[in-house]
Amino acid sequence: MQIDPTDSRRPERDLPSGTMACMEIVVIAGGVGGARFLAGLVTAAPGVTITAVVNTGDDVTLHGLRICPDLDTVMYTLGDGIDPGRGWGRRGETWTVKDELAAYGAEPTWFGLGDRDLATHLVRTRMLVAGYPLSQVTTALGERWQPGVTLLPMSDQRVETHVVVTDPQTGRQQAIHFQEWWIKHRAALDPAAFVQVGVEDARPAPGVVEAFATADAVVLAPSNPVVSVGTVLGVPGMREALLSTPGRVVGLSPIVGGSVVRGMADRCLPALGIEISAEGVGRHYGARSDGGLLDAWLVHESDTADVPGVDVRAVPLLMSDPAATQAMARAALDAAGV
Amino acid sequence: MQIDPTDSRRPERDLPSGTMACMEIVVIAGGVGGARFLAGLVTAAPGVTITAVVNTGDDVTLHGLRICPDLDTVMYTLGDGIDPGRGWGRRGETWTVKDELAAYGAEPTWFGLGDRDLATHLVRTRMLVAGYPLSQVTTALGERWQPGVTLLPMSDQRVETHVVVTDPQTGRQQAIHFQEWWIKHRAALDPAAFVQVGVEDARPAPGVVEAFATADAVVLAPSNPVVSVGTVLGVPGMREALLSTPGRVVGLSPIVGGSVVRGMADRCLPALGIEISAEGVGRHYGARSDGGLLDAWLVHESDTADVPGVDVRAVPLLMSDPAATQAMARAALDAAGV
Repeated sequence: MQIDPTDSRRPERDLPSGTMACMEIVVIAGGVGGARFLAGLVTAAPGVTITAVVNTGDDVTLHGLRICPDLDTVMYTLGDGIDPGRGWGRRGETWTVKDELAAYGAEPTWFGLGDRDLATHLVRTRMLVAGYPLSQVTTALGERWQPGVTLLPMSDQRVETHVVVTDPQTGRQQAIHFQEWWIKHRAALDPAAFVQVGVEDARPAPGVVEAFATADAVVLAPSNPVVSVGTVLGVPGMREALLSTPGRVVGLSPIVGGSVVRGMADRCLPALGIEISAEGVGRHYGARSDGGLLDAWLVHESDTADVPGVDVRAVPLLMSDPAATQAMARAALDAAGV
Repeated sequence: MQIDPTDSRRPERDLPSGTMACMEIVVIAGGVGGARFLAGLVTAAPGVTITAVVNTGDDVTLHGLRICPDLDTVMYTLGDGIDPGRGWGRRGETWTVKDELAAYGAEPTWFGLGDRDLATHLVRTRMLVAGYPLSQVTTALGERWQPGVTLLPMSDQRVETHVVVTDPQTGRQQAIHFQEWWIKHRAALDPAAFVQVGVEDARPAPGVVEAFATADAVVLAPSNPVVSVGTVLGVPGMREALLSTPGRVVGLSPIVGGSVVRGMADRCLPALGIEISAEGVGRHYGARSDGGLLDAWLVHESDTADVPGVDVRAVPLLMSDPAATQAMARAALDAAGV
């Protein structure tokens, strides 16, 4: 498969019919970055079976509602319901319920709970309370959105990322929910560590192990290596399942020119002693041939990275528009040899 | 206390300071009619301690949310948050979440779940799940609305009115929730009976018995005698508590000229063999001196009623505007001798 990643004039050019029809690709993804990458991949690989294994460590229960930010961002993005400006939440969103909750003094008030989005949480919470596992709930919600991929939570068990920080008032260490750290504190508190609460009892959601076992390629989306991809890989059995894949494993750097493209990976990497660079993240993932994950590692065209044992390729990695994102997805497929 | 019920020019005229300052009045109320009557009473009796004992038999759990229509109607009405046109729900309401739930195919779609209103249900449900009894939840919600009365659910225990109807398709009898009968079917199915599911395990909410025991007057609001006032009085111990009151018990007819003023009392009364008239309802409640409830019974000025042992008074009973409603409340106080 030959791809010209600079060809932004033809973002939906047809591939020869049937070329990739039986192919299976698994993508490990977080929220906004992962969702946009998946949207590019869907157009870059028509007819291919794509399974998205999505981080649920950001999930949180607020106002009695179970909220799965990354799953929803992927679902809304692929289902054409996303607010493209924010990159999360619903297009045409309103905030009536949020304002009313604040009028009652109901905490927390810092979470962006939109009216349209809230219906998703109501349906999800109702199904979870009724005993359906998150994977089945996600399938049910997807019947409306038709994301065009098999959308799987990393696990049906509840795993929540907490951030160990030092309280500026008391000077004492405490663990706060990832959402509180990221949204309420805007990642301003230095993270001493990230803890996956509940991860010891988690296992990959139904379909995840099977998807890896038959995948023609596995892609680590340009999502946060610590609290997105790292959280997914932290589920017991996940790493082994990934490495069982007969396909190549390709990662895309979320760091471009020493900075994070979006999100707060630059605030997370130091806690694990990872250099904030494409090379640093590539080395953190490591070569599959050497006990790591990667067969190939894509860095931005202006970056270089020396990751021993890994096929490092420099390609445009900025998802600035659909055509660029599609080209980036094609580059990943190319690096995967599919 | 002399009241000119026709004096609509001075709906908030001052009473002599301190006249009723230590007085306590308990009102048994349902939704829209009860709420409007209470609003009139608050202005008619400034400084008086008013306790509203509100029907919760209409309560329902939909989309995982605990909804208390009558409590909310009273709270919003007295807290100036009501939609005055509909008589229920919030002013300036929007319906985004309802539309979104329908887009997911989440049943039921027939209930009027507004966005502003929904925040109330979220706060309530969260508190109930956390273990707070409904009476404490109601107090907490009232901190925002400041209804100016002590707002009590009839019971902290869950009691739900179901309606026994004949399924037009199958011809078989079944019991459906009151809300389904009233809103989905618009009371079109003939009710064979009304069943208070859970009532055998219910008891009056904290404060109810105490309020009756010291009340200077008890008022049965012009609410539905079957599914509002009747449901409240069906709570074990409620009737005895009411009759323990040292004050007079005054009822107001919800039937004017042989028709219901609002709601569906005309669809409910026949199931209990009660004539659809002010006299029929008055006789149903009965004279306190004869094992019934009433010391006095107010019927509309154009109606007559013979209720043995009861002081029947004909006064204007249409709550067409705040002044008329206030005059009606004053007439009730007058009949109570306070």
